[in-house]
Amino acid sequence: MNKLLVIKIGGNIIDDETRLSSFLRDFAKIKDRKILVHGGGKLATDLSAKLGIAQKLVEGRRITDAETLKIVTMVYAGYINKNVVAGLQANHCNAIGLCGADGDAILAHKRNHPVVDYGFVGDIDRINTSLIKNLLEQNIAVVFAPITHDQQGQLLNTNADTIAQELAKGMSKEYDVSLIYSFEKSGVLLDAGDDSTVISKITAGYFQELKAQQKIFAGMIPKLDNAFAALNAGVKKVIIGKAEELNKLVSSQAGTAIVNE
Amino acid sequence: MNKLLVIKIGGNIIDDETRLSSFLRDFAKIKDRKILVHGGGKLATDLSAKLGIAQKLVEGRRITDAETLKIVTMVYAGYINKNVVAGLQANHCNAIGLCGADGDAILAHKRNHPVVDYGFVGDIDRINTSLIKNLLEQNIAVVFAPITHDQQGQLLNTNADTIAQELAKGMSKEYDVSLIYSFEKSGVLLDAGDDSTVISKITAGYFQELKAQQKIFAGMIPKLDNAFAALNAGVKKVIIGKAEELNKLVSSQAGTAIVNE
Repeated sequence: MNKLLVIKIGGNIIDDETRLSSFLRDFAKIKDRKILVHGGGKLATDLSAKLGIAQKLVEGRRITDAETLKIVTMVYAGYINKNVVAGLQANHCNAIGLCGADGDAILAHKRNHPVVDYGFVGDIDRINTSLIKNLLEQNIAVVFAPITHDQQGQLLNTNADTIAQELAKGMSKEYDVSLIYSFEKSGVLLDAGDDSTVISKITAGYFQELKAQQKIFAGMIPKLDNAFAALNAGVKKVIIGKAEELNKLVSSQAGTAIVNE
Repeated sequence: MNKLLVIKIGGNIIDDETRLSSFLRDFAKIKDRKILVHGGGKLATDLSAKLGIAQKLVEGRRITDAETLKIVTMVYAGYINKNVVAGLQANHCNAIGLCGADGDAILAHKRNHPVVDYGFVGDIDRINTSLIKNLLEQNIAVVFAPITHDQQGQLLNTNADTIAQELAKGMSKEYDVSLIYSFEKSGVLLDAGDDSTVISKITAGYFQELKAQQKIFAGMIPKLDNAFAALNAGVKKVIIGKAEELNKLVSSQAGTAIVNE
């Protein structure tokens, strides 16, 4: 099977024009088939504040009401997505920007939570692998905004990490998929305060060991649990590291690789 | 050659939720391959006003400055485009929403006018027919927002009528193209005040006659000049009529058909 990279970038890159343009240059250099999933960044929050739309929290959780959905659709699927695509085109990387409604790429349903009504938040039901494969095989990089739809005409705000994970899982029927989460640190660290203590490889066994010895930062555990869930669903490798080191992450020269064994 | 419809809807439909949802229902019913081009509507103007961004006019012409480009990218390529696509999906019409940067679909350059600097406004250089054909042949309707790019990373605000016309011309190498402009009247009228005086068919000869007899509303002449230019570039038929009568326009039971002979 051919190799496919599913790469998630966070808001810290999106918010910083210089870092974003450097990231897009690196992304364009990747020869393998590739998908980019971007999060939101501060732009949506800033726009809401300017328009006097208060962020709604219920029990400490963000709620996507109708006004907030409108803002994130504009900012994520419009401004950010189209500027990322235009930036890739400028780097001679043909790219197409989609949300989950486009080509019915990502079908979701409104979250049905017993206690909290999250509003227009989507939980993913399925990925349209044939559409995505068709684009990738035309040598087009697919850029996803974190918005899905429910096939009933409703757009839904959806966590970008989850979209990246579900895309990686879904596409693993067709490709050898590596899922790359770029974040602010160089990888999973033995000492959370020391960026030089990156663990280069974590297997399932080693993860249990690290947890038992409480050598791993608590906030990292759900991320790693998700990574192993992706591996168990067919993803070949999950890599966590710095966006600035994207090309090194791709060639296994930086970051933490999470593998089954 | 297979038939392709390129349909432009104006802001008056976009701004009216009931009329838009009825239009999308009708659009979904069309069996032929189809492209929808939407304009902007009042939403972008309203958002600019709320954010205190003044509309810039130079010699009575609207200028797209950086702030305005940001707004139209959010509203046209984000909010409107994605809601139109989600609405079509709800009507069991698979659709994909693109701007000109996506898949390098519509390449343009910043308008170079000897007197007026229009700002970030694009004039179209070429259409990526193979990408669009590939999507149409997967039975996906393509929905275009009126934003293009210059291959240098710059998005450009571009007139939706012109986008529809250039798409129709470009795709006429591959399909028998009908270009449909929906607007507020039932077609080209002999008496501008009487909607029952629709001219059902205008040939090039009849157009000259109507002009000579000054039987045609002056504002209609540039539209018809453009229509004949499209026909001369390979488009089979241009139809002008009411969005509410879309299915009748498609089956030649309403509106004005503009044909070479």
